Amino acid sequence: MGNLNNSAALIAVDWGTTNVRVALLDVSGKVLDERRGESGVGHFSAQQFEQRFDELTADWPMVPAIAAGMIGSRQGWREADYIACPASLKNLADALHTFDYNGRSITIIPGIKLDDGKRFDVMRGEESQLTGFLAKHSDFTGCVIMPGTHSKWVTLENGTVSDFRTYMTGEIFEALSEHSILKHSVMADDGGDEYFSAKSAQIAEDKQSLEGELFGLRARHLLEGCATERLRQELSAALIMAELQAGIQDGFILANPVYLIGTENLTSFYEIALRALGYRPLSVRGTSLVWPALFHLAGNAGIIRTENP
Amino acid sequence: MGNLNNSAALIAVDWGTTNVRVALLDVSGKVLDERRGESGVGHFSAQQFEQRFDELTADWPMVPAIAAGMIGSRQGWREADYIACPASLKNLADALHTFDYNGRSITIIPGIKLDDGKRFDVMRGEESQLTGFLAKHSDFTGCVIMPGTHSKWVTLENGTVSDFRTYMTGEIFEALSEHSILKHSVMADDGGDEYFSAKSAQIAEDKQSLEGELFGLRARHLLEGCATERLRQELSAALIMAELQAGIQDGFILANPVYLIGTENLTSFYEIALRALGYRPLSVRGTSLVWPALFHLAGNAGIIRTENP
Repeated sequence: MGNLNNSAALIAVDWGTTNVRVALLDVSGKVLDERRGESGVGHFSAQQFEQRFDELTADWPMVPAIAAGMIGSRQGWREADYIACPASLKNLADALHTFDYNGRSITIIPGIKLDDGKRFDVMRGEESQLTGFLAKHSDFTGCVIMPGTHSKWVTLENGTVSDFRTYMTGEIFEALSEHSILKHSVMADDGGDEYFSAKSAQIAEDKQSLEGELFGLRARHLLEGCATERLRQELSAALIMAELQAGIQDGFILANPVYLIGTENLTSFYEIALRALGYRPLSVRGTSLVWPALFHLAGNAGIIRTENP
Repeated sequence: MGNLNNSAALIAVDWGTTNVRVALLDVSGKVLDERRGESGVGHFSAQQFEQRFDELTADWPMVPAIAAGMIGSRQGWREADYIACPASLKNLADALHTFDYNGRSITIIPGIKLDDGKRFDVMRGEESQLTGFLAKHSDFTGCVIMPGTHSKWVTLENGTVSDFRTYMTGEIFEALSEHSILKHSVMADDGGDEYFSAKSAQIAEDKQSLEGELFGLRARHLLEGCATERLRQELSAALIMAELQAGIQDGFILANPVYLIGTENLTSFYEIALRALGYRPLSVRGTSLVWPALFHLAGNAGIIRTENP
C-alpha cells in the first residue's frame, strides 16, 4: 500500500440505487484500485452509509472523496439538493455539497431538477455521466439518450443541460412482465434479439398504437402457443419503440450519430430500435464516464489532494 | 318455491374471472331470483366448478342453464373454443358448447378471436354484453368502448363484430400503482374526479406523449409534495387518455354518441376523458345487458324450457 499512499489523490464514489462502486484515483485521474458492494439506498441509516463507506475504503489512504448518485437523495447519506435546469457544469460545481466525515472531506454532487410549473422531472447520477460525456465531446450540442430503468432524454447545449425528460420504459417492462397477465406469455428470456429486430421493424413500418400491441402478445400466446422467449423480445421492442416515438413527439431532436449512454446490454437493443427508425446510433458505456467526470469535477472544485502528506 | 318451479325456464350464468352471478329467469326473461359468489377461475378443478354451480342453484328447479364468460376458457369448467372475427350473432349461436351435467343441459357461449397472422386478440364475456346491446340497438353500426381491466374497442356492423382490439389500461394502472416507483406517489384514493378532469383537459390540449407524463407524477410528488390523491387521478387520466388516443390511432372511428359499456364507476371516468376530446359519450351498464343477452341466445338455440314438467 506504500505506492497507493504516495500517489493517491481522490476517492471517487458512484453510489446508485442497487450498487456502489468506489475507485482510488491518482493525481492524473488514473484508477489505482476499484471495489464494489451493495448500495443500501432506501433502507440504510446515515450510520450504515458510514460503515459501508469505511468497509469499502478501509485500507485506502486518507484522501478526499467525491460521490455521485442516489447517495445524495433524501434516502441517501446526506441530501444534496437538486439544481434547476437549465444547468451548466459550472452550476453543478458551484452546488457541490461538502461535509466532514471523521476528518475526511466528502463531496456529493447534486442532481438536476426541472420544474416550470407544468412539467416536473429529476435526474441524479446521470448529470455525472453527462459531465464525463462532455469532457470528451465538449462541443456537442443535441440530444443524448440514456437507456435505463428510468431512461433519460437530455438536450445538451454548449455544456449545459437545457432540457430533459424521463421515460419509465425499464420499469414498465418489469411491472408488465412480472405483475400483469403478460407474465405467463413473456416468462422465458433467451437473451437474443432476432424477434426484437423484427418487431421493431414492423412497428416502425405500420402506424398502430403501442398500447394496442401489448394484449396482442398474450392473445398470440393463447391462440398460437408462440414461444415466450419471442414474445418477451417483442414486448421489449414495443416498449422501447414507444419510448423513441414518445421522445420524438415530445420535441427532442435526434441527429446522427445518436449518442446512447448506458450499459452494453441495454444500448444494444436501443441501437436496433433506432436503426429501425433510420437513425445511426453510437453507444458509450455510462460507467466508463463516471471516474473521469468525478475527477474533473473534483479538480474544478479544488478538492483533489495534490501534495502527499 | 312452488312459483319458481312453475314459471322458471332458464338459469343464466355470468361466470367471470373473479365473480360468478347466476339468475333464474322465467319464460319471458324476467328475473325470478339472483345470486352471486366467487368464481374460482384459474384455480378451480372441473369438480369444484360443479360444486360451486350446485351451491348457487341448489334450491332452484331443474331447468337448462346458459353461461358466459371465463367459465368457457381453458382454465374454466369446459372449454368453449373461440369463433373467428368477423363474427355475427348467428355464428355465436351456431357455436354454443352444450353438455350434460347430472341430467341438466348446460350451454357455454364461446369467445371471439382475431387472428389474421399479424394481429391477435381475444374476447370472452364481452360478446354476450354486445349481444345484449344489439338486442336494444339492432341497427347500430360503429364503435363501442368497453372499459375494464382489459378494455375492448369493438366495431359493430349489421349485427356483426367486425373488428376489435384490447387495451390493457386497467391492468397497466394496477401494475404501475402497485409495482413501480409511482406507488408512493399515487397511494391515496379519494374517489374524486376533479384532477382527473383537469389532467384530461390538459392532455387533450398539449401534444406531449403519455409515456412522458408518468415519471412527471413521481417528480412532482418529490419536488412539490403534491397530494397522492391528486396524482392518482392524474395517472388514471394519463392512461385513459392514452387508450383513447391509441384507439383512434388504430383506426376505430368514434361517432356521437359514443357508447360506453361497463360499470358506473369506470364509465364515468371515460365519459370525462371523451368529453375532453370533444365527444358526447353515453354509458350503458354492462351487467344489465347480460341476462337479456343470455335469454335471447338461449331462445335462438331452443334451449329454454317452455313447458312445465
